[in-house]
Amino acid sequence: MVGNTFGRLFKITTAGESYGIGKGSGLAVIVDGVPPGLPLSDAIIQQELDKRRPGVGKLNSPRLETDRCSIFAGMGQDGVTTGAPVGIMIYNVDTQDIHVQQYRDYKDMCRPGHATYGFFKKYGEYQDWCGAGRSSGRETVARVAGGAIAKFILGREGIDLIAYTSSCMEITAKEMSYEEAKKNYRKNEINCPDLAAGEKMEKRVLEIKDEGDTAGGIITLRIKGVPAGLGEPVFDKLSSLLAHAIFSIGAVKGLEFGEGFKVGQMKGSENNDQFAEKNGKIGFKTNHAGGMLGGISTGEEIYARIAVKATPTISLEQDSVNMPKMKIEKLNPITRRDPTLVGRHYAVIEAMAAITIVDALMMARGYDHVCRIENKWREI
Amino acid sequence: MVGNTFGRLFKITTAGESYGIGKGSGLAVIVDGVPPGLPLSDAIIQQELDKRRPGVGKLNSPRLETDRCSIFAGMGQDGVTTGAPVGIMIYNVDTQDIHVQQYRDYKDMCRPGHATYGFFKKYGEYQDWCGAGRSSGRETVARVAGGAIAKFILGREGIDLIAYTSSCMEITAKEMSYEEAKKNYRKNEINCPDLAAGEKMEKRVLEIKDEGDTAGGIITLRIKGVPAGLGEPVFDKLSSLLAHAIFSIGAVKGLEFGEGFKVGQMKGSENNDQFAEKNGKIGFKTNHAGGMLGGISTGEEIYARIAVKATPTISLEQDSVNMPKMKIEKLNPITRRDPTLVGRHYAVIEAMAAITIVDALMMARGYDHVCRIENKWREI
Amino acid sequence: MVGNTFGRLFKITTAGESYGIGKGSGLAVIVDGVPPGLPLSDAIIQQELDKRRPGVGKLNSPRLETDRCSIFAGMGQDGVTTGAPVGIMIYNVDTQDIHVQQYRDYKDMCRPGHATYGFFKKYGEYQDWCGAGRSSGRETVARVAGGAIAKFILGREGIDLIAYTSSCMEITAKEMSYEEAKKNYRKNEINCPDLAAGEKMEKRVLEIKDEGDTAGGIITLRIKGVPAGLGEPVFDKLSSLLAHAIFSIGAVKGLEFGEGFKVGQMKGSENNDQFAEKNGKIGFKTNHAGGMLGGISTGEEIYARIAVKATPTISLEQDSVNMPKMKIEKLNPITRRDPTLVGRHYAVIEAMAAITIVDALMMARGYDHVCRIENKWREI
Amino acid sequence: MVGNTFGRLFKITTAGESYGIGKGSGLAVIVDGVPPGLPLSDAIIQQELDKRRPGVGKLNSPRLETDRCSIFAGMGQDGVTTGAPVGIMIYNVDTQDIHVQQYRDYKDMCRPGHATYGFFKKYGEYQDWCGAGRSSGRETVARVAGGAIAKFILGREGIDLIAYTSSCMEITAKEMSYEEAKKNYRKNEINCPDLAAGEKMEKRVLEIKDEGDTAGGIITLRIKGVPAGLGEPVFDKLSSLLAHAIFSIGAVKGLEFGEGFKVGQMKGSENNDQFAEKNGKIGFKTNHAGGMLGGISTGEEIYARIAVKATPTISLEQDSVNMPKMKIEKLNPITRRDPTLVGRHYAVIEAMAAITIVDALMMARGYDHVCRIENKWREI
Repeated sequence: MVGNTFGRLFKITTAGESYGIGKGSGLAVIVDGVPPGLPLSDAIIQQELDKRRPGVGKLNSPRLETDRCSIFAGMGQDGVTTGAPVGIMIYNVDTQDIHVQQYRDYKDMCRPGHATYGFFKKYGEYQDWCGAGRSSGRETVARVAGGAIAKFILGREGIDLIAYTSSCMEITAKEMSYEEAKKNYRKNEINCPDLAAGEKMEKRVLEIKDEGDTAGGIITLRIKGVPAGLGEPVFDKLSSLLAHAIFSIGAVKGLEFGEGFKVGQMKGSENNDQFAEKNGKIGFKTNHAGGMLGGISTGEEIYARIAVKATPTISLEQDSVNMPKMKIEKLNPITRRDPTLVGRHYAVIEAMAAITIVDALMMARGYDHVCRIENKWREI
Repeated sequence: MVGNTFGRLFKITTAGESYGIGKGSGLAVIVDGVPPGLPLSDAIIQQELDKRRPGVGKLNSPRLETDRCSIFAGMGQDGVTTGAPVGIMIYNVDTQDIHVQQYRDYKDMCRPGHATYGFFKKYGEYQDWCGAGRSSGRETVARVAGGAIAKFILGREGIDLIAYTSSCMEITAKEMSYEEAKKNYRKNEINCPDLAAGEKMEKRVLEIKDEGDTAGGIITLRIKGVPAGLGEPVFDKLSSLLAHAIFSIGAVKGLEFGEGFKVGQMKGSENNDQFAEKNGKIGFKTNHAGGMLGGISTGEEIYARIAVKATPTISLEQDSVNMPKMKIEKLNPITRRDPTLVGRHYAVIEAMAAITIVDALMMARGYDHVCRIENKWREI
Repeated sequence: MVGNTFGRLFKITTAGESYGIGKGSGLAVIVDGVPPGLPLSDAIIQQELDKRRPGVGKLNSPRLETDRCSIFAGMGQDGVTTGAPVGIMIYNVDTQDIHVQQYRDYKDMCRPGHATYGFFKKYGEYQDWCGAGRSSGRETVARVAGGAIAKFILGREGIDLIAYTSSCMEITAKEMSYEEAKKNYRKNEINCPDLAAGEKMEKRVLEIKDEGDTAGGIITLRIKGVPAGLGEPVFDKLSSLLAHAIFSIGAVKGLEFGEGFKVGQMKGSENNDQFAEKNGKIGFKTNHAGGMLGGISTGEEIYARIAVKATPTISLEQDSVNMPKMKIEKLNPITRRDPTLVGRHYAVIEAMAAITIVDALMMARGYDHVCRIENKWREI
Repeated sequence: MVGNTFGRLFKITTAGESYGIGKGSGLAVIVDGVPPGLPLSDAIIQQELDKRRPGVGKLNSPRLETDRCSIFAGMGQDGVTTGAPVGIMIYNVDTQDIHVQQYRDYKDMCRPGHATYGFFKKYGEYQDWCGAGRSSGRETVARVAGGAIAKFILGREGIDLIAYTSSCMEITAKEMSYEEAKKNYRKNEINCPDLAAGEKMEKRVLEIKDEGDTAGGIITLRIKGVPAGLGEPVFDKLSSLLAHAIFSIGAVKGLEFGEGFKVGQMKGSENNDQFAEKNGKIGFKTNHAGGMLGGISTGEEIYARIAVKATPTISLEQDSVNMPKMKIEKLNPITRRDPTLVGRHYAVIEAMAAITIVDALMMARGYDHVCRIENKWREI
């Protein structure tokens, strides 16, 4: 692999998988570009990690991982960042031999819908067959840890973001304002701020779970307070960078900004956002564009919708391939799985979006000038 | 701007705008990573440029640009590439003073739906007000020229790709196989291979044009022959790279792979592609995934749909903002425009997709080993 | 090739060689990251290009290239930069058929000391045998054109730099202050500000030229006014970036900062720069470090020395290899050559150093905040 | 900081400092681009780490760090790499409160010759004053751990490299062949393979140590078996990449390849390496070029010399600056220090050189084709 670093000035580099062989195996993220003087702490990181932790509630995989993080680098004796890269480690704890054996039994079989096949083709029999390695959902722990720092920085810059389930199978949440959505953010397990719809979604997911199957959904991402002018024409538009970030998350199959696919049926006069004065400031009457025009932020809310497919691991027999034998074989049901990903994926989406925005801010304003911390010695 | 280079091993860098001030103003692309020994020519590049040329037909802007390209660097005396970066120049010809004056008259006004506002916020009054500068559709000429080289390389590697209009306003083309689509590729101005649907689409666009308005649409992109194993976990998945490339194209508001947004309503058992033997080779029964799993190519056809918004420039009065005065003002109708972008945008989408695939191939196989040209002196 | 772009935020991408096959063949540079609002012009670029132009004077190759540049992109109608990438083209003019034929006659022979051998091994028989392609000194024209923009930006930031010949064969110039060196900068053909030493150097080079041989030398680079704090620990120190830039120039075989190789014989107490108050400001008593400590600029003058080898092309018979035949053969004397590179190389060194410093400034302060040009719409 | 990643396809990202505040503080490296199927182990990494370990012998700092490494990511259950990024952690053990207090006492004072001043200017009072943070020699532990993997890969590709002290103060080792140097590699504490010279060097360093002072030196780097054709014209020449890598190491003030600074006094005829047949193969009579021409490897031994300054921390009173007070003050002698760096620095130089060569190999041959491990599923 050669793609485990993301970002240009604000950068995360991750490593780790569910099962390691050494003592101290785990997941790590190194976050480069963290401004000096920030009072980070394990607790600030942990708060975000808890959003995507498994083993909690009825919609999640039964895997027992506490996901406790510890910052091992980048903090000075006075409890603030030093400007050095921040290193965060999350150790594996649920690595019982019985699970390793289960994975070993199936190691030659490609799970339909899962990344395994491509990994086999690319890395051969050496690909990590235990717990899906880097294509496991567990890989995202390190992203969320890195994203927690990005969110902390955004908070200081007056930028807020949330992601939530807006649709799951045939149930769709009603449209709501940022404030309404925020009010009921994370109020239920599926994280749908339309609480009535959320209840129906959870019921539907449990039915599907009982069938041995899994459910897909749509997650809405909203970012408020982004200043106008972020994004770099022509190839590194803010939309390009967000898309790069979002599509790097497993199970994502679609992304749209603003009106998204509806624009295919809209006239220019219907889709253009005309200008208007709002509270003495120049703004827009509407936000069909979803906060970006020509790939540059407009100052309006960034609004995106993300299609997340159903967990490919299901408890139904499927036609698989035994790779070493190069033979089609039946794959027996697998019982340990998430009935849906949407109730946890939002945390990863928020993390990747936050990292992208901080990085774009630093491109415009320079690494040394984000989070304007007092530094009377600075000459640049 | 700092984002005018795209790619890692196979890289394009572009510059240029519609109107320049010097003699010899134009658009240029430098393509780095071109293997040595390829019999490139102006004619090979020109063939692709002609796909997106304006001024031809009833659906296009009346701007008269011949878009003649000339390779100015990277070719040896024997008429093949040398391994050096290939430079291509396309001079501006239609830069009449009367047009410059028209743009000057409107230079303080932000066109609703257009990139102008963000450019104003970012570059101030220095932003290129004449012909929209780098946010003009004309910027894509250089991409298409670079993409022509990528397509030439892909052809030698047995990889083929096409993009075409699959939906425009309320009209949708029928589903068809790659071969069917290819057969009727570029048979009509809107480039819809379902010829009956295409006729309706063109009629509808002309109606909308007569209203002084513009039309959106959906473009389908298909890539055949991509080997399994391309894409780099975890942040540089092939899906991420394609998304980065596609969203860097103006007017794109949505992208989906395989079933795309439909996955939000699909169960795991419905969306998983089970394995099957096909012609003695291991393959898949279906291609819901659109040719990528875990962001790595599977060897199946890459299938994507792209939402393209209506041209923001319309002939209807709109509320705009006069930036220097910071005042809402009416923007009068503008007459010189494309009634829809879909009939030309496919060429740009093909170019960006081709560049992305060549780049991904080189990441896996090395710059020196794509297009396996005989080189008996090579030690590496 | 895949290495024709240099820089991170301020970036040059170059293409071109001495002899092209199309009409309009030439060398081009695309400079990304140029701030908006700068009154650039062909004349500003030309001034730098003239420093390294061949065919002038007795120490240079007789090649007749006027090296006239024209900016083809990135300038607005009002004569200032727009923030778009600036494109500059320099056409080839001296591409007579008789020269092409001369090169063709020798195309299978590797010139000792020249880059040809590696190019053969890497690109095979497709390597550009005419005029040495990308390994020709002519490639540096594009760097100097890009560097001219960097120097213009540095001028506005109060940063000045000069490079000059400080040693050539057994003659060494005396040590002098920045101001003294600047006073006699470019006063003689070999560009040695110690005019007496320069006279001796020129005489010695001409003697060596008459022997059919060529001469090496040492160039001193000095940069004044660099603020403290540039450079990014730990891998992108300012010293690393400057070294990357300088060693990318042909014929460079050594680089040292401050005391350089002398530090191998110096004690800590001799080499440390103690602090002192100078004009009410904190500074250093000495500058053994050459303006950088720990790879970060200190605010003192950046002082470097660069070893430039003798032109490998000589008029003496040498043992060469005929590549296709894989046989040792005699290479006959070649008459068209530079007797020394030092009198022109300084312009390339200045260019690369200037680009590096602007890039480092932008990393710290952001692309949008170098050359603090008024932009009242900016939110970032 | 934003520069803690090095490499393009083979990449190291490091974090960590001498003193951390959390439990489990330490140094980590994430190595991306490691081919699958390699039988790496803690022991293989440890072997390299032991080369630069402090607290051993009379020439080193008395700091007691065992530098025990553990691989926490990237290894599969079968004990071979999986293609995933390899993560290595080295915990801090010698972080006694008494040392922290000592550093706190001096935290406002800039040590002459040390990186502190630039860090103050850049990161303000937040810079890590305890143990010098990222400008401590201890930062290099993570480089050496990453370099151990690079060396393991090079070994499989038939490439060998060594670095050793060739000069220290006024004592210079004799010239020797690669084999001679290798034979006496690491035979004495100062790592000078000319054992007689090494004995004198050690004696001299101890004398200087007794004066409360420190000693500089020159390290020679030699790489054998590099295939011809590595390095990417024009900006990413192999010489540029090696220079970038070497100058990123603290205390390095000079670098030269082949004849280096001597070329300033050599004629073309003296410096050119003429061709010759050697054992039925085409090669060179001499290696003045140091294994690279035009920045591309020639297949000859890569030969470099690196100037390493004396440790700036000395036991003699010096004029320093108290940063918060902005006042010149005396800095009292510091007792805990390395009398010279050359006896340990070679390990870091080897590591950085090895990483650079592996990265260059992968650029040419692709990530998937270095260490040609059997993978019958591979399509690319």
